[in-house]
Amino acid sequence: MPFHPQDIIRRKRDGLELSPAEINALVRAVVSHEISDAQIAAFLMATFLRGLTPAELHALTEAMRFSGETFDPAPLQTSGPVFLVDKHSTGGVGDKTSLLIAPILAAAGLASPTPGDIPGICVPMISGRSLGHTGGTLDKLETIPGFNTQLSLPELLENLRTSGAALIGQTPNLVPADRILYALRDHTSTVESPFLITASIMSKKLAESLNGLVLDVKTGSGAFLRTADEARHLARLMVQTGEAAGTRTVALLTSMDQPLGRFAGNWIEVQECVDILRAGPDPARRHPLSTDLIALTNILSGHMLHLAGQAESPDAGAHLSDDLLRSGKAYQSWLQIIQAQGGDTTVFDNPAAFHQPASTRTLTAPQTGYLHSMDCTEVGWAVQRLGTGRTSPGAPVSAHAGIEMHAKLGDHLEVGQPLITLFSEDPSLLDEPSDMLRRTLHIAADPPIPIPLVFEVLSSR
Amino acid sequence: MPFHPQDIIRRKRDGLELSPAEINALVRAVVSHEISDAQIAAFLMATFLRGLTPAELHALTEAMRFSGETFDPAPLQTSGPVFLVDKHSTGGVGDKTSLLIAPILAAAGLASPTPGDIPGICVPMISGRSLGHTGGTLDKLETIPGFNTQLSLPELLENLRTSGAALIGQTPNLVPADRILYALRDHTSTVESPFLITASIMSKKLAESLNGLVLDVKTGSGAFLRTADEARHLARLMVQTGEAAGTRTVALLTSMDQPLGRFAGNWIEVQECVDILRAGPDPARRHPLSTDLIALTNILSGHMLHLAGQAESPDAGAHLSDDLLRSGKAYQSWLQIIQAQGGDTTVFDNPAAFHQPASTRTLTAPQTGYLHSMDCTEVGWAVQRLGTGRTSPGAPVSAHAGIEMHAKLGDHLEVGQPLITLFSEDPSLLDEPSDMLRRTLHIAADPPIPIPLVFEVLSSR
Repeated sequence: MPFHPQDIIRRKRDGLELSPAEINALVRAVVSHEISDAQIAAFLMATFLRGLTPAELHALTEAMRFSGETFDPAPLQTSGPVFLVDKHSTGGVGDKTSLLIAPILAAAGLASPTPGDIPGICVPMISGRSLGHTGGTLDKLETIPGFNTQLSLPELLENLRTSGAALIGQTPNLVPADRILYALRDHTSTVESPFLITASIMSKKLAESLNGLVLDVKTGSGAFLRTADEARHLARLMVQTGEAAGTRTVALLTSMDQPLGRFAGNWIEVQECVDILRAGPDPARRHPLSTDLIALTNILSGHMLHLAGQAESPDAGAHLSDDLLRSGKAYQSWLQIIQAQGGDTTVFDNPAAFHQPASTRTLTAPQTGYLHSMDCTEVGWAVQRLGTGRTSPGAPVSAHAGIEMHAKLGDHLEVGQPLITLFSEDPSLLDEPSDMLRRTLHIAADPPIPIPLVFEVLSSR
Repeated sequence: MPFHPQDIIRRKRDGLELSPAEINALVRAVVSHEISDAQIAAFLMATFLRGLTPAELHALTEAMRFSGETFDPAPLQTSGPVFLVDKHSTGGVGDKTSLLIAPILAAAGLASPTPGDIPGICVPMISGRSLGHTGGTLDKLETIPGFNTQLSLPELLENLRTSGAALIGQTPNLVPADRILYALRDHTSTVESPFLITASIMSKKLAESLNGLVLDVKTGSGAFLRTADEARHLARLMVQTGEAAGTRTVALLTSMDQPLGRFAGNWIEVQECVDILRAGPDPARRHPLSTDLIALTNILSGHMLHLAGQAESPDAGAHLSDDLLRSGKAYQSWLQIIQAQGGDTTVFDNPAAFHQPASTRTLTAPQTGYLHSMDCTEVGWAVQRLGTGRTSPGAPVSAHAGIEMHAKLGDHLEVGQPLITLFSEDPSLLDEPSDMLRRTLHIAADPPIPIPLVFEVLSSR
């Protein structure tokens, strides 16, 4: 079929439905540079404003998914079925559930090996870096000395065989279409389309050849999608697209109105996870500020375990997840995953001691009352400005910068009580974030209306 | 003001109104290449789908108008007011009114000189070339031996001073923003926006520093805008934009359902005009197939003469226009205009003899009946394929290719009577256009419903 980019652009512009063949030709031309940036930009803007039908979104996602190499799990499945499952979050502040979910699921998979001694569940977790005001899983993990996130797909396969999970960065040849389209979207103000976001996220997740996928779609003041309606629309599109590709997909709408857990930063988020993984059965050893993080982790893991057939319901899965945490099995998997990727696990013996920021400042409650509200995006930017974020792509990030919350929304504070502690590796970086946090952390005489952690679960069944 | 193209694109994308300063910054960045083609394309598509407010359209047109050099008529106006007026057509088949209107208006201007002996009306007609299925005024004029359309703006000024009119091509530095935007629109399927069409046409016309402008907005099967609603919308936008810039602007919606006049091509269109200019007062010397051409010419000239204050009404102006044709005064101006631009006027002594196509073929009526209908765009493409059009930008065009109509819509024909004659400088080019014309010229037992030549006049007053 001859390829006429102008015709495809014109049809999308006029709200007509493109055929899978047209969309495939377009994506192939993007990767082979047979279509100009201007034509891609015109297509992206037309798509932004016209949207995509379910069939178009499916075709675009599949064409992007297969635009480069994909993960081939067949070698894992020679002796029996292995369930490949992953979780994706749309991004938040202090959102470190991936670091807990990977070892929990790996522990569950090791507990149910297939005949060839391969874990019954594998988590090929391809993660990203800090974006905007949100943190990045890779940036957090790379604070562990020696830890290598740049695995090839054959290496990923080997690590899954031995550890049941691996946390790696995108390989250069995985979904190259997304790399090109994303850079142009950023350049042409076409980022915030739920259709283009779905194709971008889902093409990369589906390239992992998943059997199941759980999506954590954040909403609230710290999320990219601030309203529940926007988040619900995106969640529906992603569930539809995952299911259309044959991957069981569940999406949870979760609140992102305050940092998740106790810490937000890079190493200190690893530290919080290690504390939880090492807490054992004694509930008193779990830090009270980590309660929401543990709860959300168990809910997300529970859905993954349910999809994988390891639990009768998501609730039963959440209980199983908590059991795997408390029994220490998830910690054993964590050590195995980190060691398999070259990480030095001796730092986990005393994680607080490894945290060595050059400077620390604690802000106290300016009045007595309840922690009432915050602009959590502003909190995220404060964390970035402390040094956890990048000023340009590829720049190094600070390992030990970040914040520690001393209170969650609804907690009561006396005037002068610690509210938040800031950490930075550069003392000159403390002032601006301190001002930002002082302005946005709002203490009031009355407690706020509680916001549920998870307020909707979407699935196609 | 710092220039943030992404912000401007985002605001247009979201349907917000851009300020004149933002639009001006954008157009300046287009000309200075400080904005990428991808960003321009995203802006064009957002504008295509969101439209422009009257204030935005005015600002875009003015920013484009002043993106390069503009015609400065001040030296003409030292001794008294000179009225600068032009006509623009959205393009048609056999539309050669410019070749008649320029000398008619010049004759009227010479008849009412200002104290410095400068014509009271001047027509700085900057014209275009063949586009799509339509002919181009410059391509027609360049069949006159020696005729030079590449005048600089100072040369244009000199010719207006002596002849009252000049027919020239766009200079390299006139409205450079349009050249860049038009090439990208063609490349990104963003041509057919009434807003972008208005800005493109009006920026170039307003760069002529006109006092008055008459727009011939074609509609029907041979027009770029096929429906009256589309044509009316474009006409309204152009009138608004012209008036907002201080130029009295009138638009006529006219039918383009068959070639205008007797001939469509290059030289033969000049020949048809010379025949009309030389016909003198005897109505019998006007060819009956040229009736619609003469009528439309007089109507358009009439509006221009009315704007220029030379006639009490457009109707009175049309009568004056016909007087100038019949008296031979328009022909005298024609000779002067052509000579001033280097043209050899001896070819006008026997224009039919100058017409020397290599091959001729006449199609006859396949049945007895009325010429009922045609797809006039298809007729235009047939004319192009005979050799009048270009296969690539800058390629030469055939001077003597074209068609002669032997009947107009509604005329009765006996079977075997001549219907249309094709001319080409290359005999191998006759077959395909013959087939196209045979297929599209439809003869029926009943006459068609007559279509008025002009069916609406739009002005702001």
